[in-house]
Amino acid sequence: MGKEDMHLIWGSGSGPCWKAMIALAEKGFDDIEKTLIEFSKKGHKSKEVMELNSRGQVPTFKDGDIIVNESMAICLYLEKAYPNSGTKLLPEEVADYAKVIQLAIEAQENLNMKIMIKCIYFTWMTPEEKREGKEFIEAFENNIKDLKEELKIWEKHVKESESGHVGGKAFSLADVVLYTFVAYLVRFGSSLDDYPNLLKYYKNLGERPSIAKTFPPHWKEGPLEGKKLLFKGAL
Amino acid sequence: MGKEDMHLIWGSGSGPCWKAMIALAEKGFDDIEKTLIEFSKKGHKSKEVMELNSRGQVPTFKDGDIIVNESMAICLYLEKAYPNSGTKLLPEEVADYAKVIQLAIEAQENLNMKIMIKCIYFTWMTPEEKREGKEFIEAFENNIKDLKEELKIWEKHVKESESGHVGGKAFSLADVVLYTFVAYLVRFGSSLDDYPNLLKYYKNLGERPSIAKTFPPHWKEGPLEGKKLLFKGAL
Repeated sequence: MGKEDMHLIWGSGSGPCWKAMIALAEKGFDDIEKTLIEFSKKGHKSKEVMELNSRGQVPTFKDGDIIVNESMAICLYLEKAYPNSGTKLLPEEVADYAKVIQLAIEAQENLNMKIMIKCIYFTWMTPEEKREGKEFIEAFENNIKDLKEELKIWEKHVKESESGHVGGKAFSLADVVLYTFVAYLVRFGSSLDDYPNLLKYYKNLGERPSIAKTFPPHWKEGPLEGKKLLFKGAL
Repeated sequence: MGKEDMHLIWGSGSGPCWKAMIALAEKGFDDIEKTLIEFSKKGHKSKEVMELNSRGQVPTFKDGDIIVNESMAICLYLEKAYPNSGTKLLPEEVADYAKVIQLAIEAQENLNMKIMIKCIYFTWMTPEEKREGKEFIEAFENNIKDLKEELKIWEKHVKESESGHVGGKAFSLADVVLYTFVAYLVRFGSSLDDYPNLLKYYKNLGERPSIAKTFPPHWKEGPLEGKKLLFKGAL
């Protein structure tokens, strides 16, 4: 157990992997052994992954003999095992802890459902010819409407935070979670013009070393284009 | 802060509410002030709820001035604020903690998606006349197939556990989460015949006071019937 015994298997552009990597960087473990897999080559179903994670998913993370694969569990594990290393992802004081854990889980549950599942995956899972159909368009528009309501909640949270961190005075697990979802909005074409505080949050926290260094490498190669920009003009 | 200052607003048959109630009972806080709302009367949108939880959802939980509403956050909060009260929902030892937090979040993510969203809510959200159609039937059958694969994973976890608790030697947060989902399978008609260890787990843990006392009251009034039994003969 410890930095020398850690190994992370990850894929570029995966939100859960990115969360784990931000948390590792914040705890001072950004230079651990890492293996980058390619989803297109089914790297997440490789023998190396399957031996540690029979679901064939990334992130797959080990620390010596300890295996933790769910991104939120990795963050909580790191804080439990290494409370005094790097950033405290969860505050010590009980009321502060309550705020951070509530916001982190609230962001994970709601933004994963409303951004990833109901907009991005929903589009990807619909055959291309059906995406022009009335049924898909209506459903997608409803999902966008829900997402806009959801984003107003986070715009308000970020606006109310004087520190620029959503969970309180300092960077925390709530930022690890929220940031990756806001970045997904931008990646898929949102200008965030209607959410000026989320835009500022996205820009400012993007300069934080743990986030800048772990930004999905293939996102830097160039923006998505055309119809892939699901959120362009929509939010 | 403390037992006298706690208040839980809940609804019968809500898995998230039930998780919070099991956790509260395990920590010795089962006799706190509680308000039972009725979903059919939009009790979750009442002024009392909305003031504490602008999403209008239950559970809504307060402990003095501290408000925590996400069920997993409530469990983590209780363990943080009252580590020495009642059952330890999360083990002290790091490797044991890792196992419990991984399984708790793995159960929450996968079983919520595969039981609740892809089977139960998917059916409820489909207009009744469409439930006889080929498209719905094919999609539902695929979702059932995925769920069966998922249940094999948990059958194996429970089988391998000598203690009868999924997360290790003792009852833990992983059981709080897993139990409520297994109970949903039974409520919606599964006999669990193909999952003998999950059936044993369901029966044995069902006698645990924290679970027996918090079992959804309206589930005791009688079983679902007819087509409402989505999992009857299906799993």
